[in-house]
Amino acid sequence: MPAAPEEVEPSGSDLRPGETDRLKAFSDGVFAIVITLLVLDLRVPEFQKGELFGSLLEEAPSLFAFVVSFVYIGVLWLNHHSLLRLIRGTTFAINWINLGILFGVVIIPFPTAVLASALAKGGTHDLRVAVVMYALAAALMSSPWLVFFVYLHRHPALRAEHVGADQVRAQQYRPITGIVLYGFTGLLGWIAYPLIGLAGIVVMIIFHGLTSEGISTRPLRWVRSGRRR
Amino acid sequence: MPAAPEEVEPSGSDLRPGETDRLKAFSDGVFAIVITLLVLDLRVPEFQKGELFGSLLEEAPSLFAFVVSFVYIGVLWLNHHSLLRLIRGTTFAINWINLGILFGVVIIPFPTAVLASALAKGGTHDLRVAVVMYALAAALMSSPWLVFFVYLHRHPALRAEHVGADQVRAQQYRPITGIVLYGFTGLLGWIAYPLIGLAGIVVMIIFHGLTSEGISTRPLRWVRSGRRR
Amino acid sequence: MPAAPEEVEPSGSDLRPGETDRLKAFSDGVFAIVITLLVLDLRVPEFQKGELFGSLLEEAPSLFAFVVSFVYIGVLWLNHHSLLRLIRGTTFAINWINLGILFGVVIIPFPTAVLASALAKGGTHDLRVAVVMYALAAALMSSPWLVFFVYLHRHPALRAEHVGADQVRAQQYRPITGIVLYGFTGLLGWIAYPLIGLAGIVVMIIFHGLTSEGISTRPLRWVRSGRRR
Amino acid sequence: MPAAPEEVEPSGSDLRPGETDRLKAFSDGVFAIVITLLVLDLRVPEFQKGELFGSLLEEAPSLFAFVVSFVYIGVLWLNHHSLLRLIRGTTFAINWINLGILFGVVIIPFPTAVLASALAKGGTHDLRVAVVMYALAAALMSSPWLVFFVYLHRHPALRAEHVGADQVRAQQYRPITGIVLYGFTGLLGWIAYPLIGLAGIVVMIIFHGLTSEGISTRPLRWVRSGRRR
Repeated sequence: MPAAPEEVEPSGSDLRPGETDRLKAFSDGVFAIVITLLVLDLRVPEFQKGELFGSLLEEAPSLFAFVVSFVYIGVLWLNHHSLLRLIRGTTFAINWINLGILFGVVIIPFPTAVLASALAKGGTHDLRVAVVMYALAAALMSSPWLVFFVYLHRHPALRAEHVGADQVRAQQYRPITGIVLYGFTGLLGWIAYPLIGLAGIVVMIIFHGLTSEGISTRPLRWVRSGRRR
Repeated sequence: MPAAPEEVEPSGSDLRPGETDRLKAFSDGVFAIVITLLVLDLRVPEFQKGELFGSLLEEAPSLFAFVVSFVYIGVLWLNHHSLLRLIRGTTFAINWINLGILFGVVIIPFPTAVLASALAKGGTHDLRVAVVMYALAAALMSSPWLVFFVYLHRHPALRAEHVGADQVRAQQYRPITGIVLYGFTGLLGWIAYPLIGLAGIVVMIIFHGLTSEGISTRPLRWVRSGRRR
Repeated sequence: MPAAPEEVEPSGSDLRPGETDRLKAFSDGVFAIVITLLVLDLRVPEFQKGELFGSLLEEAPSLFAFVVSFVYIGVLWLNHHSLLRLIRGTTFAINWINLGILFGVVIIPFPTAVLASALAKGGTHDLRVAVVMYALAAALMSSPWLVFFVYLHRHPALRAEHVGADQVRAQQYRPITGIVLYGFTGLLGWIAYPLIGLAGIVVMIIFHGLTSEGISTRPLRWVRSGRRR
Repeated sequence: MPAAPEEVEPSGSDLRPGETDRLKAFSDGVFAIVITLLVLDLRVPEFQKGELFGSLLEEAPSLFAFVVSFVYIGVLWLNHHSLLRLIRGTTFAINWINLGILFGVVIIPFPTAVLASALAKGGTHDLRVAVVMYALAAALMSSPWLVFFVYLHRHPALRAEHVGADQVRAQQYRPITGIVLYGFTGLLGWIAYPLIGLAGIVVMIIFHGLTSEGISTRPLRWVRSGRRR
């Protein structure tokens, strides 16, 4: 029986260099769909003639949950963008880890809808349940990112050209921060007033947004050079 | 700690030249989904045996709102298409501005559904609320486009090869026109008869469609040369 | 004011050669979403304990409408695939014609849902309405394809390298056939028994599927050569 | 009448080498949408103030069905990924076989929703119906994969560069295994207790996941080389 196609690769490893293209296309598709599906929870409520405005006001909590989750998924996309720039090919394991990351992305609309529902018609206890659930889901979602960095650290052949070992190690602290802080936020939402937990979620999303290019580099980058080639 | 991958770029700037590919793929995915999701609001109404035709006629306002929004998102896609041809790479800021643009695109089905609902079962006041909401949403949506042009004007290194400074400046007037005219249209719909505001929205969409290749160039372009290479 | 970027193109025409990439990505996204959204109309009906099987049988008409529309959109994708291989770039007009084609694709789930609904709970008259609506929508959908071929015929500079003038002319007959035959099928469904119209729709879809590579070439193509390079 | 564009190809066959790009983009889009749409069946149930937690617990069967189907579609994507690496272009027949494969992928949310519904509110008989239906759908879905391998075996010119005849033949056993074992699992679910059939489905999905890179090669592959270029 002949060798598998990968075996013929000159590098002698299982790494398939060209494969990130399809991984990116599939992931971008998933991100694009999830960020768009969120709007489906913004439903026009039933209204009686002349009372559309009042009915729309009742949708305000849904709109808030929509904006938070839109920004969240946008931030995750930016992070995923930076993530895949670290590698120069895929392996069987990277494909599975990426599916784990996408699982976290795909599930977001559910805790979002629960949160919107609790804000709209639940009591304090329901809101507490919803905030804790959102925080736990967010903490859980950070795990495959950690697995990714640990895996990449152990398999340096996977690293893209400019990426050093220290950089990969530095990235590992971000999902760990996520797991710890989201867990803490959920706990805070449970024992203190739930809205504090909600505020904590928003702060965490902003933190991830600002550090999406990696914590080892300055978070905010602009094109400083004004010269034209 | 080693320098971030971008720092190693020969250009010495934060610009990442190859990155527009994924920005385009993600944006195209979002546009494709939004333009397709609009059809979900075209629902077969409940009907009694023999009365399907009458029930379908009641869907006419939904169909009208669907066609308007389909053309609108198509126009936005054409404009986004022209937008990304102006740059030769992305930065952290461009990624965020693009998320702002996509936010505007993703939210469109909601005011569309509200408008369809108001046309179908609302009174004059409900229609007024819906038209004003649509116009305000459209005005708001123009803002990140303006931010894009201002940012690009200030960071000329981002410009694609053939794009001159004057061209970018000329483009800035289009979102400003959008913000002003949509705001005016909404006001008109509020104080005058709402259908006038509705007509204004349609006119604005056509204006954006005709100028999607930029107002500094002739709006309608055809392949004039009939010669074969 | 400087010339627009396109003006700088060496060819001196408005044609932008690289642009079909994004046109394809956007179109593929729309096709992928529409073909997938069809499944949303396959809903698990309410059932009483022990009667799931009977409830599923009632979904049979929905399943039939789903299969027909899945194959239809698949056929349209194959045709669109062949269509874009005819051109070597886009223009403002091609972008708009393509939006027209996608409009036809996006709207399909609606007549499909109406047809499923009429098959499930309508009388003969409702089925007639649904079949005529499906046929008219299909006839209407063929129009932008005809516009595409006529436009391409008049702007030969747009043609891809291997494509001759005769080939483009030959393709024009296919959407004309579509418009005439779908119209005839709808008429047949109206004056004769509606199921005859339904059969006509299925025949038309198969015709389009077999000729998706163009009627000037043999419809069924296989890799005949068994040799390995 | 001139020859069709394909005819001009130097290879003298109907094979179109560059065409897998669009086949991949379309397929990736479908996979991304299906895997994301699954979450739509996770709906927040109606709840009375203070009882959100209890209502969420009732969603547990839906969550289980969601996780199983997410992993299943992920596994199918990995397999499809490996599948398209076997060929170096498309033909009319490959396009149609791929549509058959995608049909199987697109339909998955329906048996999933039925299974979730049977787990949530059905009796043992309903669960049996749902398990058998899921197993039969899965068996049916394996057929176009078998057709793909048989077709590729008969048209060696389609094979990608590194792919040998023995490799293609070895792959044929995987869909055959799928058809036989899924059929057997469904039978087991029918005559024995349905949960045994459910367990069988999970085992089959794991089997397909582990062998997604082909059974002729070692299922689990890691980047072994730790050296940096």
